[in-house]
Amino acid sequence: MNTRLICKIIGAILMIESAFMILPLIVALIYKENDWNYFLITILFAGGVGAGMFLVKLKSTKIYAKEGLFIVGIAWVVMSLIGAVPYFISGFLPDFINAFFESVSGFTTSGITIVPDVESASHAMLFWRSMTHWIGGMGVLMFMLAISPIVGGASIHLMRAESPGPTTEKITPKISQTAKVLYIMYFVLTAVQIIALMISGLSLFQSTLISFGTLATGGFSYLNSSLAAFTVAQQIIVEVFMLLAGINFSLYFLVLTGKTRKVLKDIELRWYLIIVFAATAMISANVFFAGRQFDTPGEAIHQSVFAVLSSLTSTGFSACDYNMWPGFSQVLIVMLMFIGGCAGSTAGGIKVSRFVLLFKSLKNSILESVNPKRVRSVRYNDKTVPEPVIKTTMTYFGIVFLILIVSMIIVSLEPGMDISTSLASVATTLNNNGIELKNPAVGNLWTLSWWTRLVYIIDMLIGRLEIFPIFALFIYLLQPVNTLAKKLKRKADN
Amino acid sequence: MNTRLICKIIGAILMIESAFMILPLIVALIYKENDWNYFLITILFAGGVGAGMFLVKLKSTKIYAKEGLFIVGIAWVVMSLIGAVPYFISGFLPDFINAFFESVSGFTTSGITIVPDVESASHAMLFWRSMTHWIGGMGVLMFMLAISPIVGGASIHLMRAESPGPTTEKITPKISQTAKVLYIMYFVLTAVQIIALMISGLSLFQSTLISFGTLATGGFSYLNSSLAAFTVAQQIIVEVFMLLAGINFSLYFLVLTGKTRKVLKDIELRWYLIIVFAATAMISANVFFAGRQFDTPGEAIHQSVFAVLSSLTSTGFSACDYNMWPGFSQVLIVMLMFIGGCAGSTAGGIKVSRFVLLFKSLKNSILESVNPKRVRSVRYNDKTVPEPVIKTTMTYFGIVFLILIVSMIIVSLEPGMDISTSLASVATTLNNNGIELKNPAVGNLWTLSWWTRLVYIIDMLIGRLEIFPIFALFIYLLQPVNTLAKKLKRKADN
Repeated sequence: MNTRLICKIIGAILMIESAFMILPLIVALIYKENDWNYFLITILFAGGVGAGMFLVKLKSTKIYAKEGLFIVGIAWVVMSLIGAVPYFISGFLPDFINAFFESVSGFTTSGITIVPDVESASHAMLFWRSMTHWIGGMGVLMFMLAISPIVGGASIHLMRAESPGPTTEKITPKISQTAKVLYIMYFVLTAVQIIALMISGLSLFQSTLISFGTLATGGFSYLNSSLAAFTVAQQIIVEVFMLLAGINFSLYFLVLTGKTRKVLKDIELRWYLIIVFAATAMISANVFFAGRQFDTPGEAIHQSVFAVLSSLTSTGFSACDYNMWPGFSQVLIVMLMFIGGCAGSTAGGIKVSRFVLLFKSLKNSILESVNPKRVRSVRYNDKTVPEPVIKTTMTYFGIVFLILIVSMIIVSLEPGMDISTSLASVATTLNNNGIELKNPAVGNLWTLSWWTRLVYIIDMLIGRLEIFPIFALFIYLLQPVNTLAKKLKRKADN
Repeated sequence: MNTRLICKIIGAILMIESAFMILPLIVALIYKENDWNYFLITILFAGGVGAGMFLVKLKSTKIYAKEGLFIVGIAWVVMSLIGAVPYFISGFLPDFINAFFESVSGFTTSGITIVPDVESASHAMLFWRSMTHWIGGMGVLMFMLAISPIVGGASIHLMRAESPGPTTEKITPKISQTAKVLYIMYFVLTAVQIIALMISGLSLFQSTLISFGTLATGGFSYLNSSLAAFTVAQQIIVEVFMLLAGINFSLYFLVLTGKTRKVLKDIELRWYLIIVFAATAMISANVFFAGRQFDTPGEAIHQSVFAVLSSLTSTGFSACDYNMWPGFSQVLIVMLMFIGGCAGSTAGGIKVSRFVLLFKSLKNSILESVNPKRVRSVRYNDKTVPEPVIKTTMTYFGIVFLILIVSMIIVSLEPGMDISTSLASVATTLNNNGIELKNPAVGNLWTLSWWTRLVYIIDMLIGRLEIFPIFALFIYLLQPVNTLAKKLKRKADN
């Protein structure tokens, strides 16, 4: 392992995180809140440790893919731990597991809050919560690559390991340039949404929080009722930006460089829009006719669009109480969580492109089983998909399936937990979603046992980093155990 | 398509089914029940049509794998349709969909009954219901192969298409001989269970019904409360034979021919026993300590063993009300339904061997992602598994997953259906299980809408025939539509 490089990168991330924390500190000063203390302490501590680690002299900048995975895994855990410090030392979330939960939920853009009463939180804490969404949405390593390409040949491994979805196209020849372009588009879209929400009547502070939560497909709100109290116009603004946040950001770059035709032919974008349209049609008919939830069809459609986009893009805002909706709509909402947004977006879930590959590959397999003589290959965006990519995609589905099952089993040990609630709660964490389908028999998040909260935390990290970085972390952490086991076995053999 | 051969085979199956129906006719005569009329009518009709079809002159006995799938698919649908006739014309189940449901549930060894009051049914109807389990358990085409190998080279395709599990070993050089050996073992095990149950105090009639339901992993009972009213000794007898029915029948042949060492090394058998043991340990601790369902640990263990075997082997008998058990146990029961028994047994579900292959393949993929240089192959029973087998297994999981999702969505349109109930009900049909986790908000099976019952019927057939024969059937039925679509497209292109 290139320990020096790992050390340097973690150091850089700690310094970046401290720099980001200056913003909530300023917010605290503006609103004359005492919380500036806690942010200052964290900044000094993390910044100091980070600077020390960053000063390590490198011997080489080469790393293997394995180390790329490991770095991303450890970086996200460290980042979340430091992000939890202000919550914890300020007494905002006095249980450290809860503070860590909120921090992981923020950075992974899950948006499931463990705060009992969001409305009594300070401005600074609210700002930091939503800001963790924004940092996590595009990725902190991506940010590092955008500001300084320190790691040379390691960059591509880091970018691949942190970016969601099966493909990471380099839209510009240089990785640092690609990262910069992506961050600029992210920044511009956020700014546009902030302006739109301010025009609709929200304050700059409120607009910023909601825009952080939307563009990162996060979902933290500053109200206990999520966005249910928003006006229809404000909800529509959020709908538009949820739709945009779920699309591959590379496509915006193609539009800007005049390659709109290529964008319109993109198979993932097409399926993404078809899913949004079809799911909205089914859910609005169901809530209007069977659920009798709304007085007018227009209201039913508006609320269904919101629910579909919020669940598909994994944002997790709610504009009304989905627990009142009929079973069909709830089942569809959980299914949409698993589908997720497009690869290369900030959305969670398994990603539309993986489902497209799964469908195409299954279709071929079925046709082959009936007519074995013709060999068929999977085509995607007019290119033949190599067999290893198909295999990796299938493996991805298999692992998600197993993690889902194992998590459901552990979580269902919680008193009062039934099949629905264990499935829905694991689905919302594993897909970084945030929509909670509640069960009155189960307590609130903050009253659950530590192991259930820990499973949710691990699932959020696994979901955001798409499994492998967290596995690489576990494999590394288990190395001493493995070595011991091997030694014992060798002894037993002799 | 070799239409003549297909016609001849369907004819043979109709004649075999008529011959089997002589038994419930005799039961009706013994118990002086009027139902002998309806069985006689069905026998004359199906036997006559069958004989006519069987007399078709063959030009060739060659078929492709595709036709093998198609024949098995159509054979099971025809067999279930004819099996439903006595239920329907006698007025026992006056709604034809319900009669068809009961027949499919019987032949596919699902054992979910749509009969409102089983205890008021005639002896003849009860006998026929349980007999469909026994016929379906080992397979009717297998029976045909056992009594007369009419189809020459086609046999292997038929046997592969009808037998559960990813592998079909020929335990003897000739297929007809293999089929005969398997049926003899099936018959002997059934006879032994009948005798054991008679010793425990049941009548010959009762013992026969329960043994048909156990060895076929079916689950129809002659009591409305399944086996809850049985003595502990009787329940233990059923437990033993459920365990035996879930094991690959080829292994019994190996034991008989003195190859016990090979049996003990069988990886699927080992995992099957480990799963039974581990699940029993977890569930008995949960129901005893958390659920407080039983007064003594012994009772909790006994009931857990029963529940684990009944759900894992897809038998579906219940010895108490699982709706009262805590969430953890219910989640595990649903998971066990998906695992299923061993390949080559009469059990449903995905099969233990497929899960073993999935695990081994996923483990390799994870290790490869972390250390890409070493190529690893999957080994199973000391042999390297070829890549196409792995791919087919993965595909199988993918298709089951998609069928599960689509079925859940359609079924959840039913009023009152929630996520738990749609998942549990599709799990129990798709895995031919039979354990029902009930929801008072949803009506009884016989009051559900026709589309929900149809989804359950299709899922039971898909589950028993392991997907492909039913797909082959759909592809064939959709051929006229496809041809029309192609014609229209060609016209539009010109």
